[in-house]
Amino acid sequence: MSSLNKKFPRLLPEPIKKNMRVCDLIDGAFKAYNGARLAEACRLFSGKMIAGEGLVGMSLTGALTPAGLGRSAIVPLMKAGFIDWIISTGANLYHDLHYGLGMKLYAGSPTLDDVELRREGVIRIYDVLFDYDVLLDTDAFVRQAIQGPEFQRTMATDEFHYLLGKYVLERERKLGIKETSMLAAAHQLGVPVFTSSPGDSSIGMNVAAMALRDSLLAFDVNRDVNQTAAIVYDAKSRGLTSSVFILGGGSPKNFILQTEPQIQEVMGIEERGHDYFLQCTDARPDTGGLSGATPGEAVSWGKIDPDNLPDCVVCYTDSTISLPLITAYVLSKAAPRKPRRLYDSRDAVMEKLRQQYLKKGTVEKVAHRTDVSKPKRGRSGRSVTGTKR
Amino acid sequence: MSSLNKKFPRLLPEPIKKNMRVCDLIDGAFKAYNGARLAEACRLFSGKMIAGEGLVGMSLTGALTPAGLGRSAIVPLMKAGFIDWIISTGANLYHDLHYGLGMKLYAGSPTLDDVELRREGVIRIYDVLFDYDVLLDTDAFVRQAIQGPEFQRTMATDEFHYLLGKYVLERERKLGIKETSMLAAAHQLGVPVFTSSPGDSSIGMNVAAMALRDSLLAFDVNRDVNQTAAIVYDAKSRGLTSSVFILGGGSPKNFILQTEPQIQEVMGIEERGHDYFLQCTDARPDTGGLSGATPGEAVSWGKIDPDNLPDCVVCYTDSTISLPLITAYVLSKAAPRKPRRLYDSRDAVMEKLRQQYLKKGTVEKVAHRTDVSKPKRGRSGRSVTGTKR
Amino acid sequence: MSSLNKKFPRLLPEPIKKNMRVCDLIDGAFKAYNGARLAEACRLFSGKMIAGEGLVGMSLTGALTPAGLGRSAIVPLMKAGFIDWIISTGANLYHDLHYGLGMKLYAGSPTLDDVELRREGVIRIYDVLFDYDVLLDTDAFVRQAIQGPEFQRTMATDEFHYLLGKYVLERERKLGIKETSMLAAAHQLGVPVFTSSPGDSSIGMNVAAMALRDSLLAFDVNRDVNQTAAIVYDAKSRGLTSSVFILGGGSPKNFILQTEPQIQEVMGIEERGHDYFLQCTDARPDTGGLSGATPGEAVSWGKIDPDNLPDCVVCYTDSTISLPLITAYVLSKAAPRKPRRLYDSRDAVMEKLRQQYLKKGTVEKVAHRTDVSKPKRGRSGRSVTGTKR
Amino acid sequence: MSSLNKKFPRLLPEPIKKNMRVCDLIDGAFKAYNGARLAEACRLFSGKMIAGEGLVGMSLTGALTPAGLGRSAIVPLMKAGFIDWIISTGANLYHDLHYGLGMKLYAGSPTLDDVELRREGVIRIYDVLFDYDVLLDTDAFVRQAIQGPEFQRTMATDEFHYLLGKYVLERERKLGIKETSMLAAAHQLGVPVFTSSPGDSSIGMNVAAMALRDSLLAFDVNRDVNQTAAIVYDAKSRGLTSSVFILGGGSPKNFILQTEPQIQEVMGIEERGHDYFLQCTDARPDTGGLSGATPGEAVSWGKIDPDNLPDCVVCYTDSTISLPLITAYVLSKAAPRKPRRLYDSRDAVMEKLRQQYLKKGTVEKVAHRTDVSKPKRGRSGRSVTGTKR
Repeated sequence: MSSLNKKFPRLLPEPIKKNMRVCDLIDGAFKAYNGARLAEACRLFSGKMIAGEGLVGMSLTGALTPAGLGRSAIVPLMKAGFIDWIISTGANLYHDLHYGLGMKLYAGSPTLDDVELRREGVIRIYDVLFDYDVLLDTDAFVRQAIQGPEFQRTMATDEFHYLLGKYVLERERKLGIKETSMLAAAHQLGVPVFTSSPGDSSIGMNVAAMALRDSLLAFDVNRDVNQTAAIVYDAKSRGLTSSVFILGGGSPKNFILQTEPQIQEVMGIEERGHDYFLQCTDARPDTGGLSGATPGEAVSWGKIDPDNLPDCVVCYTDSTISLPLITAYVLSKAAPRKPRRLYDSRDAVMEKLRQQYLKKGTVEKVAHRTDVSKPKRGRSGRSVTGTKR
Repeated sequence: MSSLNKKFPRLLPEPIKKNMRVCDLIDGAFKAYNGARLAEACRLFSGKMIAGEGLVGMSLTGALTPAGLGRSAIVPLMKAGFIDWIISTGANLYHDLHYGLGMKLYAGSPTLDDVELRREGVIRIYDVLFDYDVLLDTDAFVRQAIQGPEFQRTMATDEFHYLLGKYVLERERKLGIKETSMLAAAHQLGVPVFTSSPGDSSIGMNVAAMALRDSLLAFDVNRDVNQTAAIVYDAKSRGLTSSVFILGGGSPKNFILQTEPQIQEVMGIEERGHDYFLQCTDARPDTGGLSGATPGEAVSWGKIDPDNLPDCVVCYTDSTISLPLITAYVLSKAAPRKPRRLYDSRDAVMEKLRQQYLKKGTVEKVAHRTDVSKPKRGRSGRSVTGTKR
Repeated sequence: MSSLNKKFPRLLPEPIKKNMRVCDLIDGAFKAYNGARLAEACRLFSGKMIAGEGLVGMSLTGALTPAGLGRSAIVPLMKAGFIDWIISTGANLYHDLHYGLGMKLYAGSPTLDDVELRREGVIRIYDVLFDYDVLLDTDAFVRQAIQGPEFQRTMATDEFHYLLGKYVLERERKLGIKETSMLAAAHQLGVPVFTSSPGDSSIGMNVAAMALRDSLLAFDVNRDVNQTAAIVYDAKSRGLTSSVFILGGGSPKNFILQTEPQIQEVMGIEERGHDYFLQCTDARPDTGGLSGATPGEAVSWGKIDPDNLPDCVVCYTDSTISLPLITAYVLSKAAPRKPRRLYDSRDAVMEKLRQQYLKKGTVEKVAHRTDVSKPKRGRSGRSVTGTKR
Repeated sequence: MSSLNKKFPRLLPEPIKKNMRVCDLIDGAFKAYNGARLAEACRLFSGKMIAGEGLVGMSLTGALTPAGLGRSAIVPLMKAGFIDWIISTGANLYHDLHYGLGMKLYAGSPTLDDVELRREGVIRIYDVLFDYDVLLDTDAFVRQAIQGPEFQRTMATDEFHYLLGKYVLERERKLGIKETSMLAAAHQLGVPVFTSSPGDSSIGMNVAAMALRDSLLAFDVNRDVNQTAAIVYDAKSRGLTSSVFILGGGSPKNFILQTEPQIQEVMGIEERGHDYFLQCTDARPDTGGLSGATPGEAVSWGKIDPDNLPDCVVCYTDSTISLPLITAYVLSKAAPRKPRRLYDSRDAVMEKLRQQYLKKGTVEKVAHRTDVSKPKRGRSGRSVTGTKR
């Protein structure tokens, strides 16, 4: 027998039985290809990403909240303390509002006649259906909420979503529903929620329209960029791991990963990259887009710590399948963690990064070294000793 | 609210909890996109396909047995009486032998150096690894088995696999292992196993090499074509439903579906198509291949009964994820059925089809009518009254 | 023969010959599946989208400029007057800078060892390679450019890119290279270039870092949202067609399409949607994401005019294949148009939309009607007569 | 600059111009991702695969002949001497008959109502449409042709297709059409055409039905397996290269590749694998199926010569796009070759392999060595000196 094989476990699953728990099925029968990736994802998440005080950032793309995954999976993960910060498309946050506002979505079909749907005032997201009024009412909710005095200024999106979440939470309470909305839960749990494209959704659209009236609300994109880098930098400089849990790809994937180049490449502060990388996607690598780019490619950019590349997992499957499975697994296998409430320390970590940047950074070209050997002690925050090549 | 929406259930999943059973998670949280398709697949299978005496044919492509899915999922489904007949690629049957012969496969990695694997004598199927000796030993097993006198003739592949299954079953018993091999289980349970491409695998390769010596074993392709049509025709003419459970696509998908055109288009016998269609695949429809062709397209060919098109399900996901989930669901939700032992009546159903064909068929162009209105009584076997257009 | 078939052309291509021109091959041999979609895309673009004064917006995702498509395809299309405005990911604009700054990228391989690349200071985008210094030098260029006094304020991204493009153009001239950069060409031609996620790229990262110093540059997201809607509204209200040419999907796809809901759903101004929709993507519809959402789905949202749905084309193929082919076809078949220089009228169209919005819009819920029947005269700008359902 | 980059060409394409030839566009603008793969495929085919006397086998899956690619691309490649032998799905050969018999197919749409199509007697292959009569008439043609005395025996599929091709050619001539059918062209040019699944298509279905009457026609699967191996063995033992050009994947991909394991693993004859591997497919590797398996994986099986792995190309794109492009490129760049007429030497090469097998082969386990170092002289046919591990 080749000695190569000895490094790997034998592949001999037990027969599937009735009434199996999700976690037992995954451990017992998901042995190869994307099934194995999904099992590895479950074990990476429950075993390494949330071990100790490890930080977990989640990025969300694809129409996940319309599919009910906010309520079924993401809120439970947040409440269990397994998601510490979030980058989402605006659309996922906008459609999250429908749930928080008690509106009705329907599990429909992808094969309806769209011209008739348009005529009937029915909106379709693949097989999810809802009335056009759901959009109009949600839009009005956003416009009315942001008339509040606390919104009359420029702010980062985490702050904006925190403030908006309060309104959603209140509406939930008034309606007697609970744990339906990601934004409401994030407000309660102090989970910062960013969007990388603040204008790109009906939330941003309503904010923009109101700016044509007298609204003073505007988004501070620079703060978003620096704040997300600050969250990662703070964790890494305190010796914690930083993990990314990427659902889909797109701009949020880039935004959650670029925190490391922001620290290293732009700010000139030495760092090694995120520790663990877990992605569920239908994107393929060969067409070159960032959505399908592998963790290996991310290593070449300094986004991922090269030492942990073997632990990185990409599971090519629809998030509507993988996310419920991972959620059920992790909730079964790991004890809940106390929510970190990163939102509460947003100014402190920002200031910490700013100070470090003002010490190391330069307008001129950044000197660099890419020493990929493991540092002896500590993980980060050491001085840059690189020399220009 | 648009009346269109009223036809569909509200989309409002409950939060996922720890220790959930697979069937509860699927019913509770798989609400949209391929997640919803998977839930529909589970309910179609457990609720309609195996209802009453309904016949279920399974087609297998993709390297499923190397992934351990023969032992974990397919054998349990067969034992529960949920799979009545099978079309498989030769490769899935060949690699099934490794399990039945007690050989070792390993859950490896897709990123190994293949030139080194070649040098080391390690074979790779994506992330499944095994020694080259596994191939050589399995090959020798096939060659030795088919030297038996019962193999010295031309036969259909269901007969060949039945005979070969006996040797595998004996080897399993000798080794003290059980329920590891699809072929052994099929032998025991009387489940006919066909392959649409008898030369296209190491089984066929060894049979072909031995034919250069003195072996008389050869495959009767014509019988395979007619026998599979006979299985479907017999069921439909007795008023039973005929369902297809397609894993992957490829030649086995075509072969299991072409049974209906064989009856209607080639033999001139009136029929309406299979009743239920369930496919798990990664193929996409837009590139035109049969693997990704939709049930709708199959309706245009007469392969699927148009009345049941709304019940047809295609779940676009890796079978290593969908098959364990569907298996766990169906075993939990449906009572086992007594195995039908279709193999035992192979000559009888063949003769029944032959008689009908000799009555209706012609060498000349077949007259046809495509009356898609539901027949009043009975399902099939009525005279062709179509007129040539 | 069924009368259904008569509506379609016979499928009987001529044999391919040596030395064929691209446009002849596409017209002659691309007859089914995605090949046919690509041919339809070419004819839609050259025949309808750029007919008359029709407006064409392009959205860019995927790593297209690293693949050289800025220089080879996008700049030539812009110069021919076939692209009037652009939404791009930040990454495509950042990597465009490398070309404009005369830096070197390499046509490498996707199978290199990323840990070694990291050690060597080589960055990889699938199979495109370049030195880490390319990033560091480009970053320094951005930081130095934005120190100019014209950047010391809040501005929309079209304005920012226009100003930055001037620096790139100057650098090109200094280096004696030309037509290498999209941003430089956009500056010259007055093509507005937006990004939907201004912080999400190394451009945004450097802007954000500089904001920690004394830079006053910030992005006006609200203006981006309203400005893009204003471009579409102005065209439609003048009776011009508005077309979208979507490369990839992601946030830029949403941003270019949401202009119509911004007008209708948020601002309460009656409109019918974009006229022509052309997308080249590898995203699939069944996983529910916006990237793979079909034009039909967009009709249900009012993003696309239902009357033109039959003309909408989605070609599922890698943009590195489709974009050069479409470019070669369109340049061969259509006469160049005078660049529209939309950038020059940015304030005027913005003011026009603002006036209309202040007339029609409301903070309360927008009344709506979804009358999909074709208006008799004119296309838009009529008063909203809808009643709340 | 990293020395790693120096190994690769600079990526700096020229602007696309009007009226470009296909080959110039591909060389000039296809620089990364699948675009680059397509360009590499073109150069591999025109530069290496058909260099000298190199043998080229093509495998065909996906509905290519319905898309007109038989007439537009495959027949021209055959006539130019660039395709020496073929493995096809039965479906591609069956639908090829429609063209040879002068029947009408239509370039339709994928969004028609299939229940109505069924009612109207229209068959749909994604967006290709034709009358049900096309099937019925083609079926009758097959049944009538195989009544000829030359068909009254068991034969391999290459022989069957050669005989059937004669009838198609005659029909073409009678109808005054030419070069419309692959089977007719193969008959004329002596190109052997095999199918790996002889029962799996309407051709096989009609052959099977006729066997229920008095037809003696049956398929010799063993001969197919050995004959294809003999073609490869003969070429390799004469020092020629053997290349595979794989369109799609499926059973034909496996069948064309398994020729090498048939020689090495089953017959015990030393060989190194095919020399060049070129695949155009939409299958993905990560789901484990053979369709998407990489050339690297094939090296681990001995299917591909490890020394040539860097030359292997997989282009992930729809064959309706890639095949016309490759055809136009190769016809422009390479001089036609004299057709090899492999069909004429089918018995001779079979006998050569048989003799070698009877010398080296064994019923027992094959001894092996996997010496991947390049042999000094000649390529094959040397004695097996391996020792059992």
